Amino acid sequence: MAEGSSRNLTWHGGLVRAADRAALLGQRGCVVWLTGLPASGKSTLAGALEGRLISEGRAAYVLDGDNLRHGLNRDLGFSPEDRDENIRRVGEVAALMADAGLITITAFISPYRAARLRARQAAGAAPFFEVFLDVPVEVCRRRDPKGLYAKAQAGQLRQFTGVDAPYERPESPEIVVDAAAKGVEECVETVHAHLRRNGVLRPPGS
Amino acid sequence: MAEGSSRNLTWHGGLVRAADRAALLGQRGCVVWLTGLPASGKSTLAGALEGRLISEGRAAYVLDGDNLRHGLNRDLGFSPEDRDENIRRVGEVAALMADAGLITITAFISPYRAARLRARQAAGAAPFFEVFLDVPVEVCRRRDPKGLYAKAQAGQLRQFTGVDAPYERPESPEIVVDAAAKGVEECVETVHAHLRRNGVLRPPGS
Repeated sequence: MAEGSSRNLTWHGGLVRAADRAALLGQRGCVVWLTGLPASGKSTLAGALEGRLISEGRAAYVLDGDNLRHGLNRDLGFSPEDRDENIRRVGEVAALMADAGLITITAFISPYRAARLRARQAAGAAPFFEVFLDVPVEVCRRRDPKGLYAKAQAGQLRQFTGVDAPYERPESPEIVVDAAAKGVEECVETVHAHLRRNGVLRPPGS
Repeated sequence: MAEGSSRNLTWHGGLVRAADRAALLGQRGCVVWLTGLPASGKSTLAGALEGRLISEGRAAYVLDGDNLRHGLNRDLGFSPEDRDENIRRVGEVAALMADAGLITITAFISPYRAARLRARQAAGAAPFFEVFLDVPVEVCRRRDPKGLYAKAQAGQLRQFTGVDAPYERPESPEIVVDAAAKGVEECVETVHAHLRRNGVLRPPGS
């Protein structure tokens, strides 16, 4: 509106409260934040979880790293700063979607604890569930569906998580899924059960 | 994931299609893009429209310039480039929310045609309704609830739309509301009727 600082900004609380949205949609908007190494199965789990929720009549949506980079984050590259900004924006968009009442599922490597904590803080009052796909790097390297581990090993990609960039394991994630030993449907059930237990999914009509 | 270009990105179409979401929610996700001078009544109309939709059991959400600047866009200032980036991101987030099935209402001055066109293009297959709040600048200047026109007149704010920065009137908006002569409920009805006529709002249970 005007040049200068943010001193002219006013916070609009809005007329519609989170409780109204939850009553309307029969669910509590929340963030389901998947994290894990490349090829640990984040996108697969995200898509399968979304599919189950939608088939049950829940409003759910997946924010996916690859997809977001075609739109909101298309101005960002892969420098450490840009990767950090990528995750920051995802956390903010997930927070907005959760505030709108959606079960918002994000599927990003998000290797740094500080960045995941910032996403949790962005969610504010909305429930935030950190889901760690605990898959050994050797398994991910063998899967390598996009051939990226091979490229990184060959020195064609730099700063690749799991090869020459670190992955900081979550210290106290809400949910750990053993996506190496278990099938996708079993992993979906693990997350879904946690959402049920935490009051995010109320029985239809209740 | 890896340093370099976007050549390793893959578009995930997702397992859930827009038709599934529309059937689930009983509405078509869309973008209702309000545009108009400062103090033309965008935030008021947005809040009242959201309130009506929610009270009818619709999933709706307002993206508001002031609010977004506390989160997603808190890294942006008010230079021409930052204001442009502000609107670009809003268009992309609105597109994601519409894709998720929400009736997404945006309340930004968005004074430039090119920026509004870009937001429309970002929405892709989702319906996009440009709503022009057609209020003479003299009326806005008299209202001036935040005292910003007065500050701009006094030279304390620069590049203020309606004083020393241009507002490009929409050439073919889907909806024009006479927010100078009409009350907010009448303006809400104008937009709501347009949404009904365009198949965004199906009768509950149909």
